Amino acid sequence: MSFQLTILGTGSATPVLNRHPTSHHLIIDQEGYLIDCGEGTQLQLLAYKLRPSKIKYIFITHLHGDHYFGLIGLLSTFNLHRRTDDLWIFGPEGLAEIITIQLKYSDSRLMFKIHFTETDTEKSYQLFENEHVTIHTIPLIHRVPCCGFLIREKERKRNLIKEIIPAGLSYEDLKRLKDGYDILDENGQILYKNQDYTTESSNKPRSYAFCSDTLYHRPIIDQVKGVDLLYYEATFLDELSQRAFDTNHSTALQAGMVARDAKVGKLIIGHFSSRYKVLDDHLTEARSVFPNTDLAVEGESLLIGNSGVNHV
Amino acid sequence: MSFQLTILGTGSATPVLNRHPTSHHLIIDQEGYLIDCGEGTQLQLLAYKLRPSKIKYIFITHLHGDHYFGLIGLLSTFNLHRRTDDLWIFGPEGLAEIITIQLKYSDSRLMFKIHFTETDTEKSYQLFENEHVTIHTIPLIHRVPCCGFLIREKERKRNLIKEIIPAGLSYEDLKRLKDGYDILDENGQILYKNQDYTTESSNKPRSYAFCSDTLYHRPIIDQVKGVDLLYYEATFLDELSQRAFDTNHSTALQAGMVARDAKVGKLIIGHFSSRYKVLDDHLTEARSVFPNTDLAVEGESLLIGNSGVNHV
Repeated sequence: MSFQLTILGTGSATPVLNRHPTSHHLIIDQEGYLIDCGEGTQLQLLAYKLRPSKIKYIFITHLHGDHYFGLIGLLSTFNLHRRTDDLWIFGPEGLAEIITIQLKYSDSRLMFKIHFTETDTEKSYQLFENEHVTIHTIPLIHRVPCCGFLIREKERKRNLIKEIIPAGLSYEDLKRLKDGYDILDENGQILYKNQDYTTESSNKPRSYAFCSDTLYHRPIIDQVKGVDLLYYEATFLDELSQRAFDTNHSTALQAGMVARDAKVGKLIIGHFSSRYKVLDDHLTEARSVFPNTDLAVEGESLLIGNSGVNHV
Repeated sequence: MSFQLTILGTGSATPVLNRHPTSHHLIIDQEGYLIDCGEGTQLQLLAYKLRPSKIKYIFITHLHGDHYFGLIGLLSTFNLHRRTDDLWIFGPEGLAEIITIQLKYSDSRLMFKIHFTETDTEKSYQLFENEHVTIHTIPLIHRVPCCGFLIREKERKRNLIKEIIPAGLSYEDLKRLKDGYDILDENGQILYKNQDYTTESSNKPRSYAFCSDTLYHRPIIDQVKGVDLLYYEATFLDELSQRAFDTNHSTALQAGMVARDAKVGKLIIGHFSSRYKVLDDHLTEARSVFPNTDLAVEGESLLIGNSGVNHV
């Protein structure tokens, strides 16, 4: 199963040329997930040749514009492209109302169904699951209701012992074995016992945590404990920690501390304030406490694999 | 007085790389005007080094996303830049509601005052005037309420006869003479008679008409009669005139016909459908009936001057 992230925006609220507002695109087993969708996200998808039609799930952390102003444009484009596949959108109170009113005045009748789910940003709970992953909220502290998202792969499927698998088994039978079930005959008797034909996967489930704008707040550490990849918005350098505190943001040093204390595999920092023309100091600062840190780079993809996170 | 247009977007609803949605920026005597504001307009302003803080008036033709989805982002950025100058916004019913609800959920308190004026898109009337221009609505026919805008310079100021202007006149006195008034002494007696010190301007007032998405509709011709510059959205080639008709758009040929029949000075066409990779045929088609036609080009500026319209 693929688990690949592409970063679409690394800027913060004040626009800067060549630094777009926040959006992350994930492909997990062929399905597209979008986390946040700042203005211009649909053009970033085009620029990096990511097919918007693949996007099935959209998660919005909070209703500041640099995290969602691009959503209505993307939905309009889905319609222009004659999308008919259902879409699932998760976000705070108000998001559905904002989208609905804009569709009303543009006299748009969507050809696809949107399933809106309002997030409760105050607590950590399982917001979503499908065949492949579960997604939990990560309560964050910002000026408006805000939560991050923890995407965790479900238990990995069992490995088939190919050498002894009987010939002629159907695709469904093989899937059943990989899912841990026995194969039964028409009378309900065990024909092939699962344990005889499969072994446990040695790979642990992969995980990715996305923490947008937030005050540095130690409970986050428990939420993201041990994830393979942590994205954490480190708007300021630590010399502006008072400003970070006053505006409910974090510093690069604080991002590193969260990553270190949560013992994550790798840290990516982003959402850089427009005041910083170069970002070397952000990297140095975060790496001073958590060496396996990289800067978010627009258009860059990371593969979350069995042996860690690698740039594609 | 300067009267300069910069084109920020030439695309239509479906996004294409390097073709942004509609927005035109005008500088008229140092004041900024924006007509339409598609997604990403604020980045286009940055790209072409146009100072957003100069924008004082914003006019929105209709509430399809490719004409206004960038507005909320621009307003948010004004606030981040700590704008305190008033802003005037003109647009159809719903625009104020859409903006207000987004500001509410982002918990934004604007530091500047917005004066919203709802346009009546059904009739032609004077929507606005200031010291320099009047702006009239141009009713257009589209799927939602829609109007264009006709910006007309007020009567040109009188020319000072520099050789005989008495020394020591204040800036206000000179302005009074240019505006056609006499200069009075403290007793209200005429000190300098206007006609002795000024001559009538030989330059006729300049004008610019902006017609967005619309069905080809002959009453538009009367509205834009004789303007120096007509911008007209010519989404399709005439071979798709049925599609243009069905979707309330115009063709390049129709744009040329409007320009020809209205005897305008120059025509600029834009809002090209994403299906067209090259635009030579649009130009050929419009020029076949109105030779002084150019394609809209992003970032290009046109100066509306006394001797016609010139690329800057």
